[in-house]
Amino acid sequence: MSLGSKLKAVLVDLSGTIHIDDFVIPGALEALERLRKSHLKIKFVTNTTKESKNTLHQRLTRIGFKICQEEIFTSLTAARNYVEKQNARPMLLLSEDALRDFSGISTDNPNAVVVGLAPESFNFGTLNKAFRLVLDGASLIAIHKAKYYKRPDGLALGPGPFVQGLEYATGVTATVVGKPERAFFTEALVSLGCQPEDAVMIGDDVTGDIEGAQKIGMKGILVKTGKYRDGDERKIDPPPSCVAENFASAVDLILKEGT
Amino acid sequence: MSLGSKLKAVLVDLSGTIHIDDFVIPGALEALERLRKSHLKIKFVTNTTKESKNTLHQRLTRIGFKICQEEIFTSLTAARNYVEKQNARPMLLLSEDALRDFSGISTDNPNAVVVGLAPESFNFGTLNKAFRLVLDGASLIAIHKAKYYKRPDGLALGPGPFVQGLEYATGVTATVVGKPERAFFTEALVSLGCQPEDAVMIGDDVTGDIEGAQKIGMKGILVKTGKYRDGDERKIDPPPSCVAENFASAVDLILKEGT
Repeated sequence: MSLGSKLKAVLVDLSGTIHIDDFVIPGALEALERLRKSHLKIKFVTNTTKESKNTLHQRLTRIGFKICQEEIFTSLTAARNYVEKQNARPMLLLSEDALRDFSGISTDNPNAVVVGLAPESFNFGTLNKAFRLVLDGASLIAIHKAKYYKRPDGLALGPGPFVQGLEYATGVTATVVGKPERAFFTEALVSLGCQPEDAVMIGDDVTGDIEGAQKIGMKGILVKTGKYRDGDERKIDPPPSCVAENFASAVDLILKEGT
Repeated sequence: MSLGSKLKAVLVDLSGTIHIDDFVIPGALEALERLRKSHLKIKFVTNTTKESKNTLHQRLTRIGFKICQEEIFTSLTAARNYVEKQNARPMLLLSEDALRDFSGISTDNPNAVVVGLAPESFNFGTLNKAFRLVLDGASLIAIHKAKYYKRPDGLALGPGPFVQGLEYATGVTATVVGKPERAFFTEALVSLGCQPEDAVMIGDDVTGDIEGAQKIGMKGILVKTGKYRDGDERKIDPPPSCVAENFASAVDLILKEGT
């Protein structure tokens, strides 16, 4: 396991890697400060679909992180960028808060459907509207295709099953904009002016974070916090470049080996 | 195209083949009478998921068909039989009318999920309950996996997309009990005491009716009514044993060639 010795940028996952809800992963605040003292560029990349960037930023600030909004790249931002590039007028299946990240985007006479995590939109009537639009030629855009997510009361369906259902009904394959898609990592690196081989991804999700990043040529450090489960590092081939106990250890590893 | 000359039984699709809603396909009433005068056994087989057998039977009787309930084999009946065989206590995602076909079945402490066409159940809360049950080991049973169906106001999502979504989320493959599954045709023939090679299926759905029946060794006659579209007969390989203008022509063909 090695990072090489010429890193220029670090992509950092948020939930499960530096915080879980309103709790800081122990040592993460100080580790981020250490990382900031190096020459390395930093971007925080996340698949959030429920929270707008503003809400997410407020939460991180409240629990003690010194991060500015411009440093955060979310799957919602990726979706907005994609919609703008395509000049699309999307029907938005998104939570009320996530909708804020699409303010100013025209949704009249829609020619696209964007699906995030929107339990209140996942009903027959709304899904049927989306189905008919796609059947009539609208493009289908998925924030990501997570199968499920953790809620205080247990596991709950993610956006993936609903995207999958719409794909099955229409025969159209969705454009997925979030992790682990190549385009997501590429876009985050472009914003830093950095090549994949000069960058490392730190995250707790072995497929979403590590496999995705490594597929475009980045290094990957899997942390054993958040959704990490014993043996996750053996679930992908090639395995993660490195495995670290937590974000603080990952940062130490980078400062020692990757700079 | 040939039927051979030793048919013993005929399976007849309902909607699109002998009627459409409350309209009789021209000539179907008389053709059924002609067929009844032969030695051939008859079963009406249908993928209905909205209507109970009783409602369906009342409709057929009202528009002039002389059919008794015992002659009808629906995907709901197939599902009930399957549930009983498995000693399952199902959570039923079914329309109110379809629920009648499950009267007397215990649904306490469910260990199975049955999915039919139930727009009012296709919401996040109910689907999430089903998801958790399947994740906890409940079996997943689909009446059928139709992608969509025709409504007066246009196409609408069928049960398929929701079954597909639950399969994606849970990693469990549903047991499909309706057409075009082998078990559906086999069970219908067993009830007639007949082998597949001695039976023919008449239907308007080239994949659901004809391909499904032919896969178990039955003959198939595709009728050009209902959902038939130009060129459908070329969509399956091997092609339908025969193609007929309508049910009446199909019956004439059987009485001429298959008896």
